[in-house]
Amino acid sequence: MAYFEDMKIGDVREFGSYLFTKENIIRFAQKYDPQPFHLDEEAAKKSLFGGLCASGWHTGAACMRKIVDFNKAQYEAAIARGEKPLPGGPSPGFKNLKWLKPVFAGDTVTYSSEITELRESATRPQWGIMFAKIIGVNQNGERVYEFDSSAFIPRKPK
Amino acid sequence: MAYFEDMKIGDVREFGSYLFTKENIIRFAQKYDPQPFHLDEEAAKKSLFGGLCASGWHTGAACMRKIVDFNKAQYEAAIARGEKPLPGGPSPGFKNLKWLKPVFAGDTVTYSSEITELRESATRPQWGIMFAKIIGVNQNGERVYEFDSSAFIPRKPK
Repeated sequence: MAYFEDMKIGDVREFGSYLFTKENIIRFAQKYDPQPFHLDEEAAKKSLFGGLCASGWHTGAACMRKIVDFNKAQYEAAIARGEKPLPGGPSPGFKNLKWLKPVFAGDTVTYSSEITELRESATRPQWGIMFAKIIGVNQNGERVYEFDSSAFIPRKPK
Repeated sequence: MAYFEDMKIGDVREFGSYLFTKENIIRFAQKYDPQPFHLDEEAAKKSLFGGLCASGWHTGAACMRKIVDFNKAQYEAAIARGEKPLPGGPSPGFKNLKWLKPVFAGDTVTYSSEITELRESATRPQWGIMFAKIIGVNQNGERVYEFDSSAFIPRKPK
């Protein structure tokens, strides 16, 4: 996790890729989104999606996992460089989440972010707020997922 | 699933409740959001949340499950009444998702929605669009989760 002072608008971070398989799509859907087009290949073929596809919440949860893994790797790399990184702050929520296209069984989605705004916190001088567009792109280069995130980022100790 | 014509602004639907346990919080987090305050009680006590709490994506996925169960029950009740219900349409996404308070192990969250706007689809005469505020309230009456949803709803056949 970088410090607020190290970030600039336009910075892109690549979080990594997630393979949506028939198995993990169905497993997630059985617990959290048991609709026919997320559970059953034949029913999905007859649905308006035309094939077995992931719950939108699965697409979102997989993105979260990639972000957490990315932040952990950054954190550990900082430790390895002899720095004392601070953990990131919580996210108060996000805006404009869009499931732009279905994510089908067999699709690989690559998640990334681009910083769109950086704002000092008026009330919490030890934190800044980072606004970023998070996107997920499939193996055909099609954007399937996006949202606008905001997160508290630690400022450099003075 | 009711028809578009049967809905009106202000209609409230109760989707049901979900109990967040230590076990299901940790299980979700291990797969999708492995941060210390979602994984480990001791680490969580030392975090700014002050206790083991659910991933925001878990709060969202549990809400989806309750909505799907609710819609299924509505669908089956319509079948039982001798009606021929249509399945609901897809959701194009949502806006303004907020995790307002932490959801701690042991909390029960009750999800509901209130219709805020109904719009005919200009391009798809067989569908209307329903806008609703979805909320999650814990056992103390505190709102912990909300977002603004939109969904295509079938219109009554003419």
